[in-house]
Amino acid sequence: MIAKTPKPPYYAVIFTSIRTAGDKNYSKTSEKMIALARQQIGFLGLESARETIGITVSYWESLEAIKNWKNNSAHQIARQKGKDLWYQSFKVRICKVENDYEFEL
Amino acid sequence: MIAKTPKPPYYAVIFTSIRTAGDKNYSKTSEKMIALARQQIGFLGLESARETIGITVSYWESLEAIKNWKNNSAHQIARQKGKDLWYQSFKVRICKVENDYEFEL
Repeated sequence: MIAKTPKPPYYAVIFTSIRTAGDKNYSKTSEKMIALARQQIGFLGLESARETIGITVSYWESLEAIKNWKNNSAHQIARQKGKDLWYQSFKVRICKVENDYEFEL
Repeated sequence: MIAKTPKPPYYAVIFTSIRTAGDKNYSKTSEKMIALARQQIGFLGLESARETIGITVSYWESLEAIKNWKNNSAHQIARQKGKDLWYQSFKVRICKVENDYEFEL
């Protein structure tokens, strides 16, 4: 679903990735990491879709919240497995959301 | 593919959407709009994936480039069709990319 985020400013982490072949426990770990991210202080929401590339955008209250999540030990282990097993390439972009608007039928 | 963007700062527009049922000429217009966006001054790259939700992130040199693209007449017509035909809901977030890093096997 589209994340329900507060009025800007807030922060976004855009994680764009290309997977290697085979699951290699990726799906299970990915679900676990999303559940764990949702428990972090300052977490605001998450959106994700994958076709040729995967795009996951997580939203955060502050740069500090993003840093804390980056340093979370279970997340650090998962990130290392990402490099060792799951991703052919990825890019992470840390952004300040300055403005937003929405539409609903 | 993962967009090859320059060193930050630059800007990102995160467009998250849920489609209505049926194509209704969406795919063709979507391709046209991506081709047209690529021709705009200040355009840096684009990433897109759709599953339950669609996420399209476009990257731009400046807020002015984003504004010019928003005001492009063909894009304005497509955006109106988006509201009339193609989207059940969407959210647009305008972001300043402050930092990025990448990984490649």
